[in-house]
Amino acid sequence: MKTMLHIDTYLKSRSQLIEEHLTRLIPEKEVPYHTLFSAARYSLMGGGKRLRPILALATTETLGGDIDTALTAACALELIHTYSLIHDDLPCMDNDDFRRGKLTLHKVYPEGHAVLTGDFLLTHAFDLIANDTELTTDQRLQLIKTLSKHAGGNGMIAGQVLDIQSEGKQIDLERLRLIHRCKTGAMITASIEFGGILSNATELEMQILRRFGEEIGLAFQIVDDILDVTASKEKHGRLVPSDLTNHKVTYVTLLGLEESQVAAQTLFQSACEQLSALSVDPALLISLADVLVHRKI
Amino acid sequence: MKTMLHIDTYLKSRSQLIEEHLTRLIPEKEVPYHTLFSAARYSLMGGGKRLRPILALATTETLGGDIDTALTAACALELIHTYSLIHDDLPCMDNDDFRRGKLTLHKVYPEGHAVLTGDFLLTHAFDLIANDTELTTDQRLQLIKTLSKHAGGNGMIAGQVLDIQSEGKQIDLERLRLIHRCKTGAMITASIEFGGILSNATELEMQILRRFGEEIGLAFQIVDDILDVTASKEKHGRLVPSDLTNHKVTYVTLLGLEESQVAAQTLFQSACEQLSALSVDPALLISLADVLVHRKI
Repeated sequence: MKTMLHIDTYLKSRSQLIEEHLTRLIPEKEVPYHTLFSAARYSLMGGGKRLRPILALATTETLGGDIDTALTAACALELIHTYSLIHDDLPCMDNDDFRRGKLTLHKVYPEGHAVLTGDFLLTHAFDLIANDTELTTDQRLQLIKTLSKHAGGNGMIAGQVLDIQSEGKQIDLERLRLIHRCKTGAMITASIEFGGILSNATELEMQILRRFGEEIGLAFQIVDDILDVTASKEKHGRLVPSDLTNHKVTYVTLLGLEESQVAAQTLFQSACEQLSALSVDPALLISLADVLVHRKI
Repeated sequence: MKTMLHIDTYLKSRSQLIEEHLTRLIPEKEVPYHTLFSAARYSLMGGGKRLRPILALATTETLGGDIDTALTAACALELIHTYSLIHDDLPCMDNDDFRRGKLTLHKVYPEGHAVLTGDFLLTHAFDLIANDTELTTDQRLQLIKTLSKHAGGNGMIAGQVLDIQSEGKQIDLERLRLIHRCKTGAMITASIEFGGILSNATELEMQILRRFGEEIGLAFQIVDDILDVTASKEKHGRLVPSDLTNHKVTYVTLLGLEESQVAAQTLFQSACEQLSALSVDPALLISLADVLVHRKI
């Protein structure tokens, strides 16, 4: 209970730091004659959990790095996450009208404008890192490599394409695991790796962090599949998970609820065990992983 | 006439080098289980003029740099250009069914897939540069800064948003110049700057190249406006320029045909004069600029 309170306070304080920094990075009135930046702010300041930048900062802190120095790079992760949501919500993709209780960007701005705002946030993430004078040239290049790898055609975007191409098809566990790893896992791994780069981790520490990130990332997405069933059940008193309605293959449809829970828990434990090989106290990262894997919503 | 023949041969040989390298950079079968790379190749190998990579290579050669070393970074410019065309052609943007005589990407693949392919090419451009071991760390970072600046929210994307927001409105010459500079000029300037970075140009040389790029970039777009009128006239025997049909403000609608031609020619001459301050023979860049500004299609 004490740990949970502690991690809640931590999440709140880091989230606030990140929100304040994001508003500095994308100022309201930078270009008065077009609305690209206002559109970007609309989506960016739309109340996310800031999970990816928090993971980057927590990893930085765990390894003795400085979070002020790490803040811009951590926020770049949120720009990438936000761009992916804007494009995901488009009528030609998931066609969502609402996100976090607010109208999606293409419902407030013309649809073409929403596409361009996503493009802008993606481009700007690289711009922020490349121009971050708080970091060494090597750190910046390492971060850009990590970001372009995990957000790209063998990472997040591959996951989205695979996801689209698997809709309505009976896929096996191996394929589903690949989709989860790419679509959600890749950017979670990137966030943890960012923390390693930002705290000048050794190659051995980077390997440990990478494995931790991969396992937590997959567990996070399995829990998503589980919550799609259990949260619906709790809310509606019956099983009407959106994935089932969508005829989407999930961990739960493939393995059942109980085995999915076991899979998530096994990954969580394995991920935390990885961290014991670090020469620093991993308590903060374990608490964060605990929040991600044992969340109720 | 001799120079024109020479530059035609040059364009052909460089274009071939670029096409061969592009097919190596985005191999057909890299990921057999999804179609992201095939979709990227469909658009990328769709027969463009390869103007931006050629400008980068020509600048590199002019300043004594090695074009083999420069090739990957030059191709990254083509990835950015291609992504911008894919997103521009979308139904929610220009809604074009054909590009260079081929169906546009969203007519061959699902629309969401086309959005993601654009995202992939954009991300991959940064990935290619960041991982280009032919270049120094400093060169890579300089290229990424240049690319994210000119392709981003104060460059190409700003131009596209400004363009959308100006449709059907009576804008003045200052605003039109800004749109042209951002939408087309920025990536032409970036291409020239790439050549400077790839040949380790001095700061003074970079300034000269930047001004040359800015003037040629603007002239290129003014010529586009002119050709929209004259090419229509030649083809249809009457004035049915697409920009007029679209109620779009252009150099020709604001200044008339003759004054627009003078504006383009003045910029061309000024751009070429800039180059005389270089300590190397600028003949190749002048020939290229001549092709861009005095083209007939």
